[in-house]
Amino acid sequence: MTSSEEGELGKLVLAMRELFQLGLINPRGGNGSVLLDERHIAITPSGVAKQWLKVEDLVIYDMETGEFRGRFKPSIEVNAHVLTYKKVKEARAVLHAHPPLVLALTDRFTKSKSRRRWWETGLVEVEYSVGRAEIAEPFQPGSVELAEEVSSKLASGARIVIVPKHGVFAWGRTVEEAMDAVVALELVAKYVLARLVSVK
Amino acid sequence: MTSSEEGELGKLVLAMRELFQLGLINPRGGNGSVLLDERHIAITPSGVAKQWLKVEDLVIYDMETGEFRGRFKPSIEVNAHVLTYKKVKEARAVLHAHPPLVLALTDRFTKSKSRRRWWETGLVEVEYSVGRAEIAEPFQPGSVELAEEVSSKLASGARIVIVPKHGVFAWGRTVEEAMDAVVALELVAKYVLARLVSVK
Amino acid sequence: MTSSEEGELGKLVLAMRELFQLGLINPRGGNGSVLLDERHIAITPSGVAKQWLKVEDLVIYDMETGEFRGRFKPSIEVNAHVLTYKKVKEARAVLHAHPPLVLALTDRFTKSKSRRRWWETGLVEVEYSVGRAEIAEPFQPGSVELAEEVSSKLASGARIVIVPKHGVFAWGRTVEEAMDAVVALELVAKYVLARLVSVK
Amino acid sequence: MTSSEEGELGKLVLAMRELFQLGLINPRGGNGSVLLDERHIAITPSGVAKQWLKVEDLVIYDMETGEFRGRFKPSIEVNAHVLTYKKVKEARAVLHAHPPLVLALTDRFTKSKSRRRWWETGLVEVEYSVGRAEIAEPFQPGSVELAEEVSSKLASGARIVIVPKHGVFAWGRTVEEAMDAVVALELVAKYVLARLVSVK
Repeated sequence: MTSSEEGELGKLVLAMRELFQLGLINPRGGNGSVLLDERHIAITPSGVAKQWLKVEDLVIYDMETGEFRGRFKPSIEVNAHVLTYKKVKEARAVLHAHPPLVLALTDRFTKSKSRRRWWETGLVEVEYSVGRAEIAEPFQPGSVELAEEVSSKLASGARIVIVPKHGVFAWGRTVEEAMDAVVALELVAKYVLARLVSVK
Repeated sequence: MTSSEEGELGKLVLAMRELFQLGLINPRGGNGSVLLDERHIAITPSGVAKQWLKVEDLVIYDMETGEFRGRFKPSIEVNAHVLTYKKVKEARAVLHAHPPLVLALTDRFTKSKSRRRWWETGLVEVEYSVGRAEIAEPFQPGSVELAEEVSSKLASGARIVIVPKHGVFAWGRTVEEAMDAVVALELVAKYVLARLVSVK
Repeated sequence: MTSSEEGELGKLVLAMRELFQLGLINPRGGNGSVLLDERHIAITPSGVAKQWLKVEDLVIYDMETGEFRGRFKPSIEVNAHVLTYKKVKEARAVLHAHPPLVLALTDRFTKSKSRRRWWETGLVEVEYSVGRAEIAEPFQPGSVELAEEVSSKLASGARIVIVPKHGVFAWGRTVEEAMDAVVALELVAKYVLARLVSVK
Repeated sequence: MTSSEEGELGKLVLAMRELFQLGLINPRGGNGSVLLDERHIAITPSGVAKQWLKVEDLVIYDMETGEFRGRFKPSIEVNAHVLTYKKVKEARAVLHAHPPLVLALTDRFTKSKSRRRWWETGLVEVEYSVGRAEIAEPFQPGSVELAEEVSSKLASGARIVIVPKHGVFAWGRTVEEAMDAVVALELVAKYVLARLVSVK
């Protein structure tokens, strides 16, 4: 493993801790991965507290055979990660989080034409950090259908995909690019809610 | 003390600090414990700031005699912890926190049939992390009645019990499993509030 | 300086950083002190970022002569601290913070008889951690009048005093007891707001 | 580089991390700078996660020639920083953040005469920490027009300028003075929202 890969692995572990601290995942929610080479990724383990993760807890997963090495099993969303790397040629990192305000607004405005894409606010970070966002069909967590749906939407030009009642998936050329989209989208949701809430 | 037990004690101390940082306990609110062997638990001390706790501040408590060792007294909720370990055979960790949004929603919807179980939202973490939640009778903090009520509800299949105007108790096979349920439930409450709040 | 005093000074510095991290003070807002002996206190300096404070930045202040030692000037609220130590015999720590939700609710319900004491919710931490709270007349920050008003209310049995549009002052036998009241009161405010906000 | 300059650089890096932790910037949003001498500033790099920044990642920028040294390019807002140092003689630090509640309130009350200056609440930190605030014309991020607009408003006596749908720029004689204004303004926004939100 080169030291630059190790750098990205360290950032993946840091990003998971920060997602927890910002209230964007519960301890065993969310997952993340980094592309190691054409065939292998390092992915967060299933059922392990993400804020306490160490680099050595990451699972090395072979995208061709499905074999893996490490103390733990890979995240149940491993298929969504693998398909994203296969379809999005530039992707070198994928993050999945459960931002509560993003999910609340997506549910609220699902039937409202004018507010369905609630993040289209003109806020600077929507253009610079969120990029294109899309809403996916909410297939079962861990299912091949969800992996297909999410990766297809990401491959079609979205930086981040919202799965209703579940969470978001974002890809990046680096961990920080994926992290930027996830954190920015929840900040936009906080802005939207404060912008809309009834006042006296 | 084996090194694996020491690991769980370290995680208990970390979990208490994180509950404070996430705004789920005030410094002297909340408590937590870990099962050491069939007869002993390590429990957080009474009246000590939880964000500054060290492993050596934990109280070793004998569940048969009620005797304890350490610089401090055990948490006043020690009975709820002990009865939970006695009734829930798989339990190896118990956490108690005061999540403000969980308590607010429980109070709001206490008389509303359709919203009383406000966490039943279909959010993925309700199934994966919260598990079954129940509302307990709000007996006096530290009382045997509260300990009986909470432990019975946990023994009947709940992962987490909400005591109105007081807080939540969750059990886990590890500290992180209990922590996961507590943190996830407050994130669900944040989602529910943002989903329901009146907007213009 | 004994090592136990040094311990309380370390906790004072930690408490200020935590108040910042929890959003209860802006960097140069808030202040805190610890009683060193019958005549001296250590108090946070004026105009210094509280999240970056070190023990050596604390100002040693002589309560009889008003002389002080240290690299900085004492907090402009030094009089409120001094008078509190003089009037509350058990006080060994005083904290002042600017909790935004506490101030908002106090302003909202100032004319509402039934909600003026908005913290009287029956929440467990109100009895155990907040203790008695009182609302003070909002005299000028740093004035002798404010110092008299706050210290008198604390001496009359209050653990914490709310100064409208300004902040709260709390005393404790330890830093953690004062910290507990400040943090608990803002958590109660968060609960009250979530309990009352209009929903659809 | 003198050790006092190094101190301010260290504080700049810390401030960026804290802005991230407080939810006032997304990882690649926001920027900050420190004046090194009459001609040079150290500024945060473009497109780098601000919570992971190290002092050696800062870009040394020559305000006369526009040349720079470092591993990265300077922030796209470098012009706003440079013009602020040129026009505000006392400025030795400039910070730019994206506080979501500040932006939401500014948008909400843009047409309301009585609430347009929503921060004028009488809160103590408005006088002591925010100082004078102004709303700028929302020119394109990174444009010379925005740099002119922001620096002119800061030079006319404002401590902090709000750019609608974008963020805030604040100057200080130290990093902590600029940081104080940014953090205080978002806390004021939190107070205002809690003061106004409809309740039952």
